[in-house]
Amino acid sequence: MTGMKLSDIPAWKNLARHADIISRPEKHLKHLLKEKDRLINFSLNGAGIFYDFSRQRLDHRVMDLLFELAESCGLKQKFIAMVRGEKINTTENRAALHTAARNFLENPIFVDGKDVMPEIRRVRDDIKLFASKVHAGKITGSTGKPFKHVVVIGIGGSYLGTEFVAQALDPLADKNIEIMFLSNVDINNFGSIASTIDPETTLWIVISKSYTTAETMANTKQAYAFMTEKGLDPGQHFITVTSMGSPGDDPSNPVLSSFHMFDFIGGRYSVTSAVGGVPLSLYLGYERFEHFLKGAQDMDLHAQDSPVEENIPLIAALISIWNNNFLGYPAHAIIPYASPLSKLAAHIQQLNMESNGKSVTQKGEPLDEPSGNIIFGEPGTNAQHSFFQLAHQGRPFPIDFIGVINPHFKQYKSQSKGVTNHQELWSNLIAQPQALAMGKEDENSAKSFSGNRPSSTLILNDLSPGNIGRLLSFYEAKTVFEAFVWNINPFDQFGVELGKTLATNIRKQMVIKNQSSEHLFNDVDPITRFYLETLFSGK
Amino acid sequence: MTGMKLSDIPAWKNLARHADIISRPEKHLKHLLKEKDRLINFSLNGAGIFYDFSRQRLDHRVMDLLFELAESCGLKQKFIAMVRGEKINTTENRAALHTAARNFLENPIFVDGKDVMPEIRRVRDDIKLFASKVHAGKITGSTGKPFKHVVVIGIGGSYLGTEFVAQALDPLADKNIEIMFLSNVDINNFGSIASTIDPETTLWIVISKSYTTAETMANTKQAYAFMTEKGLDPGQHFITVTSMGSPGDDPSNPVLSSFHMFDFIGGRYSVTSAVGGVPLSLYLGYERFEHFLKGAQDMDLHAQDSPVEENIPLIAALISIWNNNFLGYPAHAIIPYASPLSKLAAHIQQLNMESNGKSVTQKGEPLDEPSGNIIFGEPGTNAQHSFFQLAHQGRPFPIDFIGVINPHFKQYKSQSKGVTNHQELWSNLIAQPQALAMGKEDENSAKSFSGNRPSSTLILNDLSPGNIGRLLSFYEAKTVFEAFVWNINPFDQFGVELGKTLATNIRKQMVIKNQSSEHLFNDVDPITRFYLETLFSGK
Repeated sequence: MTGMKLSDIPAWKNLARHADIISRPEKHLKHLLKEKDRLINFSLNGAGIFYDFSRQRLDHRVMDLLFELAESCGLKQKFIAMVRGEKINTTENRAALHTAARNFLENPIFVDGKDVMPEIRRVRDDIKLFASKVHAGKITGSTGKPFKHVVVIGIGGSYLGTEFVAQALDPLADKNIEIMFLSNVDINNFGSIASTIDPETTLWIVISKSYTTAETMANTKQAYAFMTEKGLDPGQHFITVTSMGSPGDDPSNPVLSSFHMFDFIGGRYSVTSAVGGVPLSLYLGYERFEHFLKGAQDMDLHAQDSPVEENIPLIAALISIWNNNFLGYPAHAIIPYASPLSKLAAHIQQLNMESNGKSVTQKGEPLDEPSGNIIFGEPGTNAQHSFFQLAHQGRPFPIDFIGVINPHFKQYKSQSKGVTNHQELWSNLIAQPQALAMGKEDENSAKSFSGNRPSSTLILNDLSPGNIGRLLSFYEAKTVFEAFVWNINPFDQFGVELGKTLATNIRKQMVIKNQSSEHLFNDVDPITRFYLETLFSGK
Repeated sequence: MTGMKLSDIPAWKNLARHADIISRPEKHLKHLLKEKDRLINFSLNGAGIFYDFSRQRLDHRVMDLLFELAESCGLKQKFIAMVRGEKINTTENRAALHTAARNFLENPIFVDGKDVMPEIRRVRDDIKLFASKVHAGKITGSTGKPFKHVVVIGIGGSYLGTEFVAQALDPLADKNIEIMFLSNVDINNFGSIASTIDPETTLWIVISKSYTTAETMANTKQAYAFMTEKGLDPGQHFITVTSMGSPGDDPSNPVLSSFHMFDFIGGRYSVTSAVGGVPLSLYLGYERFEHFLKGAQDMDLHAQDSPVEENIPLIAALISIWNNNFLGYPAHAIIPYASPLSKLAAHIQQLNMESNGKSVTQKGEPLDEPSGNIIFGEPGTNAQHSFFQLAHQGRPFPIDFIGVINPHFKQYKSQSKGVTNHQELWSNLIAQPQALAMGKEDENSAKSFSGNRPSSTLILNDLSPGNIGRLLSFYEAKTVFEAFVWNINPFDQFGVELGKTLATNIRKQMVIKNQSSEHLFNDVDPITRFYLETLFSGK
């Protein structure tokens, strides 16, 4: 398959042909759904998740061709190579071992001839010990008061996953610690946090692999100055999560503690490493973090060991390719019918769009088929009252519906229209995929629904830490399986470099202007000059 | 134009032809941007907003054709008809008078022969008086304590706009009142709010035009039961915002106060009515709400009075049509470089996708060109560290960048790399549109950028209430101008009805099961039965 164009693969060609067949009126979902055992034939149970793809626009022939495509592209082999530590991040010559972060088996995993598991276990132990000391009041701020606020300073992969998990498990947070995220370099972000916290009881966690990320460094400087101005010793209120030997791991720059990240775990895949581990263990307790890891491991093993035909994230990836490249849907929505999952879409948006929004293959050849999807979403039923008008009657886009059988809160029993809130939620979760698929004709064309709009439904038993880990790992595995089909590298992100370079040039102009107010920005293009002048015109 | 197909309009045909020309290599943005006075020629100042569309893929010829299209479609006349109260919501036989909610002129506005302005002014006065009494401690909860928590119970248009504005102006909230939003019927949403508030000092605002919205009624019942269980009199802790004569405006169901909504203001356009007015006046004070209204009015007058060639929201709508129907971009991102605008995209997502995600014209004929866009977004620079990889090297999508010259917080002065946080933010705001437009070739194809990716930039002087009103009204006017080109009705939402109908049938099954646990769901299709059984299998 390597070097072969996607459109040259026999299964790909047959899928393109079959897409025409699926677009015929008799293959409308309203007909497909009437087939006997449609749900049984197009759903799976595995690793604690029920996955229903019966409302996708596909039949047995499509699935067979997709499985053939999976074989042609060596999806399983590539996944196993990833888990074993092969350097599949070829452009950066690195392994991609986020699965090792939640490996609790005894097997060694070698990178450059060295087993990485002892280091991973050591970091987990460091986190466990540190969190327990903070919770016991043995580690405190500089005035001896226990920590009650944790502020994560980090951006992108250094916070989105943690924010998702913290929000999902919020009702379990019983450590008397609040968590906040200082991500944006916008001073409004810092200002609003600074006006909320009690500095004496605040612990800042600076998360940056290189410890040079511009936004994170700027926010760290503000936080240092703020704590110093309050008469507190920053060295006793800051910890870092960073690479060994980075400027954030420098003994001459004392902090309470430093926890290590590894170059074989990329930011957007790092929530099960110390990046998520430190803040989540402080917020929820290390035990819950470990349950979360074990759930993720459960899905990792499913993705690695299940045959293609029973492999939930692999099949979800194949369906994503089908929708994207054959049926022509450029966007995909994630709609959890669970408020605690309100940050899931934002996390998967990063995970998937940064991984798979690429223009060249692993070998640097231009793609002959577009990769990547626009991912967006809000929880249901909220989304129904927001953008579902377009989902039903405008441009169609495939949807992942997510349902949870048991909610966090069970004590509120009032009924409205004869059902509990949770039942009302489910009446909508059940109705929406059906309405999208079936459609409905009406004499009034404004009230007609064309239907044939695809979706999948994922069901979790509850929002336990383990299930959140399973859900996270499901989307991580789905993302890399997609990339393995497209034959792109889901672990680099060179696409963000050009903007950084240009910003550096613009920053230099600002530095000169800060030093000398007469500076006139004559060296830059007229549009850049205009905006620099506009900024400096501010009061 | 009425009854005429879009593709039959001469300007439309010429635009289609010109789209081919714009796609030629010599029309790449890197060349267009080298034209003399590019910024001056393709930017506008008006109603407190600077609007730069120099980085859109267009030239003078495109603009001329778009202006011709605007004339053919009668955009200005339709807008004026809307503002004057004509029943342009034809499918529901209603006026669309959100602009009247912020009208402070003396002119009457007639609907069915009756001037609606006295009623609108009366509601504003009611809000002002009520808010001032709450702030003065003259209206309190049932135990005499002043209100400190306001919980808005409402979904979709009954909260998204208010949440956006409350978040944007949060640093100005000096009334010692916290605001929360209970939107989702998910019991987790209620549970997490119930575990946060002090019931004695909590005021619930139930917002529903019909006072029958399933989610809002379910949450209201939970809240009533909760307050009653705490020994508090709900009648002294609830207010309603609803239509005159609805079940929420029934004296036999006593509440502290009721504020009226009108059938000529739809939910997604209602933040300047009592829907936003009541909670925002409690949170920020009525004066700031009025400043917000006056800013919105300022942009309304600009949209109504400016000639087509100087009309910012109208031009933004034309560019949206150009990108959507001629250049083939199905999605659009809103990226404010301002954390306080973090809820803007979610609000505009509803406003625009619910308004324009339609399949038939005003006359009920099928559209010959797709309408509506997928709208999404996160604040910059966060978005750069999330999905901008795809923006630069994957599927392109047009972007609105938004910059603010003066942030809320000015007291934090630490510099990093020689610049303040706010300057760092702007270095990115300036760099990103340039990087997207210009691209860059590199020997390493993985580090090459094709460029030619379009964006606009909007600049506000600050985040004052007035400017937030201007920004809101800009997007409202842009949305309706788009609809006026497509000749669709942006004020109905029949697309959400089918899901509601199906949910009602499913709810009936649940009610029977709640009454009789032997009920077997034999009357429903197999997939629905499976999910009902799954739900009832919960612990």
